[in-house]
Amino acid sequence: MKIVIIGGVAAGPKAAARIRRLDADAEITVIEKGEFLSYAGCGLPYYVSGVVKEQAELMSTPVGVIRDPSFFKNVKDIKVLNHTEAKSIDRKNKTVTIKQEDGSIDTIEYDKLVMATGATPFIPELPGGHLKNIYKLYGVEDAEGIKATLSDNKAKDVVIVGGGLIGVEMAEALVVKGCRVTMVELLPQIMTILDPEMAVLLTQHMESKGVKVMTNTKVLGFDGKECVNKVKTDKHEISADMVIMSIGVRPTTKLASDAGLEIGSTRAIQVNEQMQTSDKDIYAVGDCAQKTNLVTGTPCYVPLGSTANKEGRVAANDICGVDDKFEGVLGSAICKVFDFAAARTGLSEQQAIDAGYDVETCLSPAPDKPHFMPTAKLLMLKLIADKKTKKLLGAQAIGPGDSAKRLDIAVTAITAGMTLSQIAKLDLCYAPPFSPAMDNLITAANILENKIDGAYKGITFAEVKAKLDNGDDFTLLDVRGPSELEAMKIDAAVNIPLGKLRNRLNELDKDKEIVTFCKISLKSYEAALILQNAGFTNVKVMDGGLLMWPYKK
Amino acid sequence: MKIVIIGGVAAGPKAAARIRRLDADAEITVIEKGEFLSYAGCGLPYYVSGVVKEQAELMSTPVGVIRDPSFFKNVKDIKVLNHTEAKSIDRKNKTVTIKQEDGSIDTIEYDKLVMATGATPFIPELPGGHLKNIYKLYGVEDAEGIKATLSDNKAKDVVIVGGGLIGVEMAEALVVKGCRVTMVELLPQIMTILDPEMAVLLTQHMESKGVKVMTNTKVLGFDGKECVNKVKTDKHEISADMVIMSIGVRPTTKLASDAGLEIGSTRAIQVNEQMQTSDKDIYAVGDCAQKTNLVTGTPCYVPLGSTANKEGRVAANDICGVDDKFEGVLGSAICKVFDFAAARTGLSEQQAIDAGYDVETCLSPAPDKPHFMPTAKLLMLKLIADKKTKKLLGAQAIGPGDSAKRLDIAVTAITAGMTLSQIAKLDLCYAPPFSPAMDNLITAANILENKIDGAYKGITFAEVKAKLDNGDDFTLLDVRGPSELEAMKIDAAVNIPLGKLRNRLNELDKDKEIVTFCKISLKSYEAALILQNAGFTNVKVMDGGLLMWPYKK
Repeated sequence: MKIVIIGGVAAGPKAAARIRRLDADAEITVIEKGEFLSYAGCGLPYYVSGVVKEQAELMSTPVGVIRDPSFFKNVKDIKVLNHTEAKSIDRKNKTVTIKQEDGSIDTIEYDKLVMATGATPFIPELPGGHLKNIYKLYGVEDAEGIKATLSDNKAKDVVIVGGGLIGVEMAEALVVKGCRVTMVELLPQIMTILDPEMAVLLTQHMESKGVKVMTNTKVLGFDGKECVNKVKTDKHEISADMVIMSIGVRPTTKLASDAGLEIGSTRAIQVNEQMQTSDKDIYAVGDCAQKTNLVTGTPCYVPLGSTANKEGRVAANDICGVDDKFEGVLGSAICKVFDFAAARTGLSEQQAIDAGYDVETCLSPAPDKPHFMPTAKLLMLKLIADKKTKKLLGAQAIGPGDSAKRLDIAVTAITAGMTLSQIAKLDLCYAPPFSPAMDNLITAANILENKIDGAYKGITFAEVKAKLDNGDDFTLLDVRGPSELEAMKIDAAVNIPLGKLRNRLNELDKDKEIVTFCKISLKSYEAALILQNAGFTNVKVMDGGLLMWPYKK
Repeated sequence: MKIVIIGGVAAGPKAAARIRRLDADAEITVIEKGEFLSYAGCGLPYYVSGVVKEQAELMSTPVGVIRDPSFFKNVKDIKVLNHTEAKSIDRKNKTVTIKQEDGSIDTIEYDKLVMATGATPFIPELPGGHLKNIYKLYGVEDAEGIKATLSDNKAKDVVIVGGGLIGVEMAEALVVKGCRVTMVELLPQIMTILDPEMAVLLTQHMESKGVKVMTNTKVLGFDGKECVNKVKTDKHEISADMVIMSIGVRPTTKLASDAGLEIGSTRAIQVNEQMQTSDKDIYAVGDCAQKTNLVTGTPCYVPLGSTANKEGRVAANDICGVDDKFEGVLGSAICKVFDFAAARTGLSEQQAIDAGYDVETCLSPAPDKPHFMPTAKLLMLKLIADKKTKKLLGAQAIGPGDSAKRLDIAVTAITAGMTLSQIAKLDLCYAPPFSPAMDNLITAANILENKIDGAYKGITFAEVKAKLDNGDDFTLLDVRGPSELEAMKIDAAVNIPLGKLRNRLNELDKDKEIVTFCKISLKSYEAALILQNAGFTNVKVMDGGLLMWPYKK
């Protein structure tokens, strides 16, 4: 059997290696346009920042062996043609036409073809876009260019265009390298994979580290002689010795579409659960292939190295006759940004509404370990659930606390279709160095179930802020204890500590709307119950508490 | 409605608080024998070590309010009688007889009674057991006693009797305080909740930190005048200025059994999924109540604060007419021991065999982040699965890497009944600061599925060691590269690096059994495939690789 694989970065080599393990006799050829094979593209921001010292570490095995063509030949018995471009596919004759480094053209036969052509950074055509020191961050070459500019000490002012995952990771990397960083984002928020009230917490953290974040700002072009020195936007001009374009990537599909393979609604190559394209002898895996959202069953495009590896394995299994399938993704993502981690999985609140669910959400900020452990750090969770089935649809986390663990539990729970009640019963591993006795995710699941059951009504920060700004006649009731007031407070609020509330109900007007709040929304929930039981009929709890309040305190 | 709750530490106050939230009018009384309410017993080792500075932190809310009777009265409208002992239950008249601190006897009526009587440390009757400085670690008083002895500088040599969770946590705490610590365990291994090959790695780590671990050793008694100065065992005597007895706990059930409530096969109070005892108006929650193993459906006894909280909430819900159930536990546990975390969930290998499963296991040691990240740390996983259904039955982890995250994913997956293939497809959150592109758990699930599918045969460390000790005629084949050999090796092994193996097959005897190994069992797996495809018929892969080899290297 002759297997040809186009693309040698992530999904391609994974498929090749798995096929070899399953079939000792298959003739496997990997075609790679660039020099580098199996390199860890996700590690590039850490190479720029200096966390990763050597380029070679990104493309070597854990014991330091470079994954070059001779490694693939000797260890895996896989033929690799690098510096070789696949120019076209002849599906009828089952051949791929390739162009080698010396310009020579050749054709290779295949029985099964795997397309792992990846994605291409989207770079809009802009005046001055040709200037030097305007980089993207996609391949090793980009990272080397950025590093060279940094080491020449030529980049003091850096503008990052696009506030997505790579943008925020690069913001940290460049601050670490001593740059003044401005992030410019066209949309009203950075990190659109997060809900707005989560993204604003990330923005505030980045700003606290010196990054200037400009949202709702459109880049119009670049100024400079040889090198860029200014970014022109629809707001004002920004000084820049270096620009990083990180607007996003698009699936690389020209070869596939030229060959007449079906392209999906997300512009990526359409595939089935075996990763087969519309031609059953051609597979597509990794960043060039369309994904399916596991919650909604609809197409989506989420290019990630983790998914690429899984898809490569499934395609290899199918090629070798091993039953397997890849059903889809949850759009899970995580990034480290200075002292925070930010993560998300499943549907965002808006995605859930758009998908037709009757949505309820909750915000739960709390220490990620018992409060008496000095290692405890703040973790802010948001859960999104379907009111009807009480199933978890999505989860987001941000803060210095351990987001990754809670989100990966949520990933598993959403994949299994668990309800909030089932999640709240999970026998998670408990000891004080690792989590509170009631884990943050369990507490959040209980809060959200209480809310769905009608135990209390929530109100968002934005709604409270609008009421304050409008001068609405309502009581904003802070139920924290006196010792908590100093650190932060909302000036317009009335304070009655929870422990005094039962005896001071007469101070409150039963006919007025009352919004209770505290630090983390637990006391305010108890306060709302006390008020409701005392006959107050218009009581709401401010979701998330003061810890997540995104406005001036 | 009159609710009486016996026990004020974990499950009791949780039930009380939840009942109040659901029913503003219920008359709720909590009876607690000791002084302290809602204290974090699991934090005691960290109070002894000084990580937690003040006793008060263990019994206060996150904002520093002590949870004393007046807190419960003012904030929760719950009546707490501390220093009060429940002496008997009259089920016919629905009353509890109590004895207060001043010796006065009283009876309280209940409509619903919740027993949260906890557990009692098991202390065998031993000669000299009355001597001073022999402690258990169960309540705050024990911790204060240990701390006082430490601060008097009277405890240089400490013997910990019992190598369970509390024992190992205390070993670390006491080493931190400058003690010479010896751990004495009756059984052949410490931490019997771990499989032997995992426990031995923990033992080695503790020994590397100066703890002397004596297994298969029976304590016969203690010597000393006023204070203990010697522990007598069936091996030899051990100097000791202080002894910590941590053999385990037993459910406190006298009150329940005196009242004629059914006691389960584990000696704990029998309950249904609503936490009701054999008397439907009496509930039992927390460490006094029997649990159900979620995998096997059989009774078990796993006393943990995390479970206590969940059970307290379920009992409260049932009392207040809210549908809920607690189906059981996985025996999940985690502990920090010096630089290692050790964790387990589900069935151990032996438990799975005993439960009648056709069991396969794998060991997978690997960095918990991409190897190029300097923050990557070793994580050693063991998975236990059912060959027939390929469902995960249990998971264990040990090492400096992030055990907690992988085990909590496993908890969720086992609870949901996921297969290895489903686990390997989980869309876990990926970025280099948090995990490898193929997460450790995903890699381990793939390895175990390969093994069940017959891709290779495994062989355990113990089997290889026995072959070496017996002088069996077999080839132990090390397929690591030359650079890896220096750090550690097995002398009896032949080395052919994987990359050279295809060309050096003639050096190996086809008629001999060949056991391949490498550092983490990935190269050795590839080597086995190469050998099998070349016609070698008796090839095995040493599970876990050299990184987990528990014998002298």
